[in-house]
Amino acid sequence: MDLLNRLLNGEKRAVARLISMAENHDPEAIHILKKLYSKTGRAHIIGITGPPGAGKSTLTDKLVKALRKEGKTVGVVAVDPTSPFTGGSILGDRVRMNDLSLDSGVFIRSMGTRGHLGGISKATQAAVKILDIYGVDYIFVETVGVGQSEVDIVKNVDTTLMVMVPGLGDDIQTLKAGIMEIGDIFAVNKADRDGAKKTATQIEMMLDFNHFEWRPPVQLVVALDNSGIDELLQKLKEHRNYMVETGNLHKRRIKNSKIEIIDLVQQELMSMILDKSTKEQMIDKLAEKVAFREHDPYSAAEEVLNELR
Amino acid sequence: MDLLNRLLNGEKRAVARLISMAENHDPEAIHILKKLYSKTGRAHIIGITGPPGAGKSTLTDKLVKALRKEGKTVGVVAVDPTSPFTGGSILGDRVRMNDLSLDSGVFIRSMGTRGHLGGISKATQAAVKILDIYGVDYIFVETVGVGQSEVDIVKNVDTTLMVMVPGLGDDIQTLKAGIMEIGDIFAVNKADRDGAKKTATQIEMMLDFNHFEWRPPVQLVVALDNSGIDELLQKLKEHRNYMVETGNLHKRRIKNSKIEIIDLVQQELMSMILDKSTKEQMIDKLAEKVAFREHDPYSAAEEVLNELR
Repeated sequence: MDLLNRLLNGEKRAVARLISMAENHDPEAIHILKKLYSKTGRAHIIGITGPPGAGKSTLTDKLVKALRKEGKTVGVVAVDPTSPFTGGSILGDRVRMNDLSLDSGVFIRSMGTRGHLGGISKATQAAVKILDIYGVDYIFVETVGVGQSEVDIVKNVDTTLMVMVPGLGDDIQTLKAGIMEIGDIFAVNKADRDGAKKTATQIEMMLDFNHFEWRPPVQLVVALDNSGIDELLQKLKEHRNYMVETGNLHKRRIKNSKIEIIDLVQQELMSMILDKSTKEQMIDKLAEKVAFREHDPYSAAEEVLNELR
Repeated sequence: MDLLNRLLNGEKRAVARLISMAENHDPEAIHILKKLYSKTGRAHIIGITGPPGAGKSTLTDKLVKALRKEGKTVGVVAVDPTSPFTGGSILGDRVRMNDLSLDSGVFIRSMGTRGHLGGISKATQAAVKILDIYGVDYIFVETVGVGQSEVDIVKNVDTTLMVMVPGLGDDIQTLKAGIMEIGDIFAVNKADRDGAKKTATQIEMMLDFNHFEWRPPVQLVVALDNSGIDELLQKLKEHRNYMVETGNLHKRRIKNSKIEIIDLVQQELMSMILDKSTKEQMIDKLAEKVAFREHDPYSAAEEVLNELR
């Protein structure tokens, strides 16, 4: 049986295979996704992000376990920051959620950030679609970091959970600025630590400055002790219900689809530039001249563009 | 006198003006940079990055002050994470390094991340070039976060200083994976805290696994107390000397120039897509169909590409 039908038949190995193909830019994966795209849009897609050390992985584990108790099926796509030079995933699946990996109702995949030209966002979104077609009820997209690329990844979801932690120091002001507008729900993890309530209050105060249709709730949790997890899960569900009932889910999906189309166009254009080895040789020569200040990068870019036309 | 000559004459206000113009994509700024590009390449450009809460701003302040004591002039370009929706810089210059802002030998500029299409990297690199032409001896490019975009920003420098801090928890493994290869020098800040030596040892162990021509040194510092700053500055200088003497500085600059040219080409292609309002309308319509699962994003992207041809 071909991959398309194996996926439709709920074969877990077909999911793994298709995600790998998408990561490796195999056109067959895209071909299958084109055919089955109308079957997406059912799962509740939740983005989980926040600064390093916030305990996002542990929190994701606990949320997955709580959903499993309800009999729900879950997919997890964990985006790991990796070397800009070697590519590939560092945190392998093996070190994550060991006790969950044998559960047939859970599918976990770690993805590396390959290259800097948007490849991760394309592969991540393909993985989410594949899991959605496969038929899981919930999909978590977990990413480390607070940079623009992480924000891009979690933007393309139904609900964004921002995980904060006490003791971020001065950077909390900076962090908050960048995240207040993308967080639908805030969790303050490690809430048994000093300063947890202060952090929660700071977040609430920042939220008070904004006007929201949906006022993001702030939930204290201690993921390690499973404390506050059920309450957090409830809030995630409430957000999804709110999005569906108000029609905002469709609005968000239109916006996300626009970003995705533009990203795909951009990536295709870039691969057009770099695939032709003569063009890459041209760029190499220009780069050398620019490095030695015999040429400037702006004129060099114009020459490459003229060559493309 | 025109801006070009005011910059060459060392007018600080011309620097500020030109950077603003570059941020606003004013073609005149690029025109001037093209003319004066051969005057760049003199300053020691140092990227400073690391996770939130590591105290990068304080550390940068202290390094700037140490250099000022030596009579060196310094430029600082601080890249702040900002809302993906509103754009603009959050941490204004006003909250940074107040006592330095009156020093005529220091130029400080905070830059927001505008949009997600690489605009920040173009504007940041333009700011660095402007400061280089202006004639400062050192340029610090400081960025918050550990995401790919932050890595991209600090990659285009002579020396990358990675600021770590005790107590990053589990994420230190993840962080390390992403940063080991881009850090030329590691600082463990807040070294008076518990676990500082352990963090330093963990970094040293990770470094031991790699083979470097230049073995990155690990320096304990307490930026707030000015402890370890002179030693760290010495290491930054040693790295630059090593890069010059071995010819690696030119190799790195060729690589960086290549990345910059490709980024510029990519940005130009994207603005070609989005500038024509008819094309954006087309994308809007496609996005709506995709959101309602009447169309798939891959075919939509192909249609946009066909329209471009």
